[in-house]
Amino acid sequence: MAKTEDDLAATAVSLGFRHQPLPSDVGDVRRLVTQTGFFSRAEIEIAEELVGERLAKGAAESGYEFVFATIGEAVVGYACYGPIACTVGSFDLYWLAVDQGRQRQGLGRQIVAEAERQILAAHGRHIYVETSGRDQYEPTRRFYSQVGYEQVAVFTDFYAPGDDKVVYRKVLRP
Amino acid sequence: MAKTEDDLAATAVSLGFRHQPLPSDVGDVRRLVTQTGFFSRAEIEIAEELVGERLAKGAAESGYEFVFATIGEAVVGYACYGPIACTVGSFDLYWLAVDQGRQRQGLGRQIVAEAERQILAAHGRHIYVETSGRDQYEPTRRFYSQVGYEQVAVFTDFYAPGDDKVVYRKVLRP
Repeated sequence: MAKTEDDLAATAVSLGFRHQPLPSDVGDVRRLVTQTGFFSRAEIEIAEELVGERLAKGAAESGYEFVFATIGEAVVGYACYGPIACTVGSFDLYWLAVDQGRQRQGLGRQIVAEAERQILAAHGRHIYVETSGRDQYEPTRRFYSQVGYEQVAVFTDFYAPGDDKVVYRKVLRP
Repeated sequence: MAKTEDDLAATAVSLGFRHQPLPSDVGDVRRLVTQTGFFSRAEIEIAEELVGERLAKGAAESGYEFVFATIGEAVVGYACYGPIACTVGSFDLYWLAVDQGRQRQGLGRQIVAEAERQILAAHGRHIYVETSGRDQYEPTRRFYSQVGYEQVAVFTDFYAPGDDKVVYRKVLRP
């Protein structure tokens, strides 16, 4: 499994990264998040709103930072993260999505690595990710384990009866 | 210990409860939260802002609900809670504070019970509370245990090195 992932990563095209959102990213984020088929309408609206809030208010006031992965002009994936209020160095990774046509090429791994570099540069110590315990999210949970995130909590029936919240954390080493 | 608490609760004056914030509550919340001596300047600002957001946007858009405990005209304690986005029936209890001159009279317990009644009426299933693992917060953690909240997670060094986040939950029974 790990070998296959590495092989695929080795064949991945070279990505560009951009950290400043553009107005066109609102639509790109909607497309990326909708395509996955994983998220509810309410969740998709939130993903889109976070880009809008960042564009309207800037990084400091909105609290939302982005990594947009690009190939040429196309946005092929993105991450949204931000510092957790009233903490020293704890960050949430709110969103991560990769273009459906470019899955299994190591893009998610590269986008997370870029977000981690940015968070470390901002004196981050911890990154938290929340996901669902439902079967559908097993690939998501496996992905975070593979890139060094450790499961630190499970809240049973959090999202709904039968739908747990699972929290992962990576401790960054400067 | 429990006996003493019950005795004190039995002597407690009868509280009124109000759920609609008034502009004057912004200052009352600042006073209540500041008095405790537990919260940082940033945290106090957030407590105050939540009242302002609720006044400006209403309950649905702000996501913030309140219980103000009153004796006559005076606000002697409050709770702020709200539904957690993208969940079915999970609520966060964001803030709870009791007038410093009226500690240890069972007011906190009564305010939490009123918030729980409101949350149950809104089809809430779970209430989550986050607090610090620092020694200073031992009375806070003991309070939540005493009123039926169970510790469900500890995030080590979450707030800062040496300052854990402890998460409590109460499962409501209709």
